[in-house]
Amino acid sequence: MGKKTISPAVLDRLPTYLAYLKTLPPGTRYISATGIAKALAMGEVSVRKDLSAICDIGRPKVGYSVSELAEIIEAFLGYDRTDTAIIAGAGKLGRALLDYEGFRAYGISLAAAFDNDPALWGKTESGKPILDVENLPVFCRENNVHVGIIAVPASAAQDICSKMAACGIRAIMNFAPTHLLSPPGVTVRNENIATSLAQLCKSAAEI
Amino acid sequence: MGKKTISPAVLDRLPTYLAYLKTLPPGTRYISATGIAKALAMGEVSVRKDLSAICDIGRPKVGYSVSELAEIIEAFLGYDRTDTAIIAGAGKLGRALLDYEGFRAYGISLAAAFDNDPALWGKTESGKPILDVENLPVFCRENNVHVGIIAVPASAAQDICSKMAACGIRAIMNFAPTHLLSPPGVTVRNENIATSLAQLCKSAAEI
Repeated sequence: MGKKTISPAVLDRLPTYLAYLKTLPPGTRYISATGIAKALAMGEVSVRKDLSAICDIGRPKVGYSVSELAEIIEAFLGYDRTDTAIIAGAGKLGRALLDYEGFRAYGISLAAAFDNDPALWGKTESGKPILDVENLPVFCRENNVHVGIIAVPASAAQDICSKMAACGIRAIMNFAPTHLLSPPGVTVRNENIATSLAQLCKSAAEI
Repeated sequence: MGKKTISPAVLDRLPTYLAYLKTLPPGTRYISATGIAKALAMGEVSVRKDLSAICDIGRPKVGYSVSELAEIIEAFLGYDRTDTAIIAGAGKLGRALLDYEGFRAYGISLAAAFDNDPALWGKTESGKPILDVENLPVFCRENNVHVGIIAVPASAAQDICSKMAACGIRAIMNFAPTHLLSPPGVTVRNENIATSLAQLCKSAAEI
């Protein structure tokens, strides 16, 4: 079957379903909507509705083939194509992200980190390159990079954000603890871990 | 003046205002609603409305005292009290978070990380302890810890989540690439960096 058109809300939930399918023990062949709903603490009807929006492989009393369902979700999310991303900033967080194995399952290859500190240039434990930030334009062009992660100090973040935009990067995830303005044509997702944790602390205090 | 009651939507935006105030050059005494709105690419009217919901220190043609406004927001968000948090998992991400300086500005003290690998026990570069996970219950009790961060592999995440709940932790930020179910009375915030990045990659592909 061809791809169906689905709502943004369903699209937002697909990664959660996929992440769950990937945690199932190897060899698990079928999973029911009830099983998924229970594991994710979601309503069974919504799960059934979401999955029927993207496929018709659910079989009564059997459920969904885990591998088929995962493939269908991956195709919907575009995870079956590998995207190349780079990181600006090779401090502790930048290096931790660069060597993180978990991106591969989602079709993301983190190719390199860039830093202006020569002491950091070289390779990480897993062999990924840390390069001079001067190399960013050439690297992005040669490797067709359109996605970047910012892990530099707050004071340097907006500047590197503009540099990335000039290198053809179209989507940026910002971990610097400052709010970045999106350059024209670029999507910036601000992920302020400190702010998120602080909001969570507050919620804990109120319980 | 005493605290006013404000809407959850305003409360959600306060950390962004505070983060912006903290990026202003030292010595900046006043900032206008117009200046804040422009810097954050928000509507001026909303900024004015949000800030008047929490204080009445805005002065015509002068603006808001930066230090006073920051203090008021911090009091609203509870950042003026320090919360102690711990991390489960002392791999690269866990250690990067443990040594991250940015939490202090938001009233969060990351006290220690816990791991079951004896090779990791000891101290980080900045002198923070990495302890045996067996010590978690005593440490949480003695240090009044109610907030935890999970940075263990996906397969170990639900188990450590239950352990944290049993130790009196009431709010958990989960960085393991798996969806965790909240134990009763506990708020779990699932922060799947890989999923977020994958969604961002997809949006870049569509631009």
